[in-house]
Amino acid sequence: MTQNIYDNPAFFAGYSQLGRSINGLDGAAEWPALRAMLPDLRGLGIVDLGCGFGWFCRWARQLGASHVLGLDVSEKMLERARAETSDAAIRYARADLERFDLPAGSFGLAYSSLALHYIEHLDRLLTTVRDALVPGGHLVFSVEHPIYTAPANPGWTVEADGRRTWPVDGYLVEGPRSTDWLAKGVIKQHRTMGHYLNALLRHGFALEHVEEWGPDEAQIAARPELADERQRPPFLLVAARRKD
Amino acid sequence: MTQNIYDNPAFFAGYSQLGRSINGLDGAAEWPALRAMLPDLRGLGIVDLGCGFGWFCRWARQLGASHVLGLDVSEKMLERARAETSDAAIRYARADLERFDLPAGSFGLAYSSLALHYIEHLDRLLTTVRDALVPGGHLVFSVEHPIYTAPANPGWTVEADGRRTWPVDGYLVEGPRSTDWLAKGVIKQHRTMGHYLNALLRHGFALEHVEEWGPDEAQIAARPELADERQRPPFLLVAARRKD
Repeated sequence: MTQNIYDNPAFFAGYSQLGRSINGLDGAAEWPALRAMLPDLRGLGIVDLGCGFGWFCRWARQLGASHVLGLDVSEKMLERARAETSDAAIRYARADLERFDLPAGSFGLAYSSLALHYIEHLDRLLTTVRDALVPGGHLVFSVEHPIYTAPANPGWTVEADGRRTWPVDGYLVEGPRSTDWLAKGVIKQHRTMGHYLNALLRHGFALEHVEEWGPDEAQIAARPELADERQRPPFLLVAARRKD
Repeated sequence: MTQNIYDNPAFFAGYSQLGRSINGLDGAAEWPALRAMLPDLRGLGIVDLGCGFGWFCRWARQLGASHVLGLDVSEKMLERARAETSDAAIRYARADLERFDLPAGSFGLAYSSLALHYIEHLDRLLTTVRDALVPGGHLVFSVEHPIYTAPANPGWTVEADGRRTWPVDGYLVEGPRSTDWLAKGVIKQHRTMGHYLNALLRHGFALEHVEEWGPDEAQIAARPELADERQRPPFLLVAARRKD
């Protein structure tokens, strides 16, 4: 099963301190871009793959989603998500996204924020998601950008003239990457952008929008530490639809 | 108009010595991947944007294309292309891809190899190409990969442990890049992968395949100097179709 790093106490403690954990959706700098790729949620059934603390599930209900299913592998995150709502139209379930099942044709939107780069078996997941969507149903997700996940040593290099560069290697060498982020040995799956996009096409999705996210000028003005993120995108955001 | 670097004598002399100039399509390592993205050419009308010496135009006729229009900004390249064939179904014309026109609904395939990264006005070009295709018509093209074009100083860094890394910066900062390749001050337009893909979607194309090309093992065995290209892809190959 997926490495359940979120239930590692040190990782969970660190993750709980991030802006996106404390401030929810608005604590994530890429959220405005991801939100802009979503369809009208009114009346939609939604599944959130890797729902974490459930911020998106609750927000989706506020915007009129008919029912929301939040899936996560982390007991600790689900526990907190459940404590945050008494809405009977939000249901949380523990699921390993490597081997979960969903009822066919039952959702208008599948959403996932920064979870799919932990998943090894993307083809299986996309088969499940496609079948779980109604024809024309939407899939909107974010992952760590392949330029970000590729390097053997991910971290800025300061050049002689002071520029900061991101040392890409292994971009076309797909597979696991072990990084130390909040805890030692966090395993992510590096795959190319082409891999993500062709997998969607092969599984019966039409691509709608592909966003290599970086902060805009207003965001950099408010948070100057984000400026480096324009040197290489940290996140890849994709919107697709089930074709038929 | 486009910088017509191919008519620069030093550039032209250098370009004429490349494997892809001497050996044609088979002299380009990415050709097998690009060829695999083409539709059946039998009976198709084809336009080749940036046809160079006309290798693709002649090959397409051999595979049964009904007629081929090769466009290029370089007089020198067109001169040689014209000298290489007496086929009346191949026509060559000088065109600046920033401001050319094509007859509407008259081609089944628009093809372009390593030309569109010289073009500043991609939206105008895609409007022209879309209108020139029949509904369902194909667009298959290659460009230098955005990871390749982004850096201020494109070139390998040798790390302390001997690994070679590609120093990405400015990836999200689109616009011209001046590089010295065969001649000084060759201007290319850096744009993100997302930019290419979203422009296609916005102009009425459906995406079919996105290939971040690198050499396969057999190619590296035959030409070990290609191995570095797996560290970061040199080319981006895209197949799309006019939707309706």
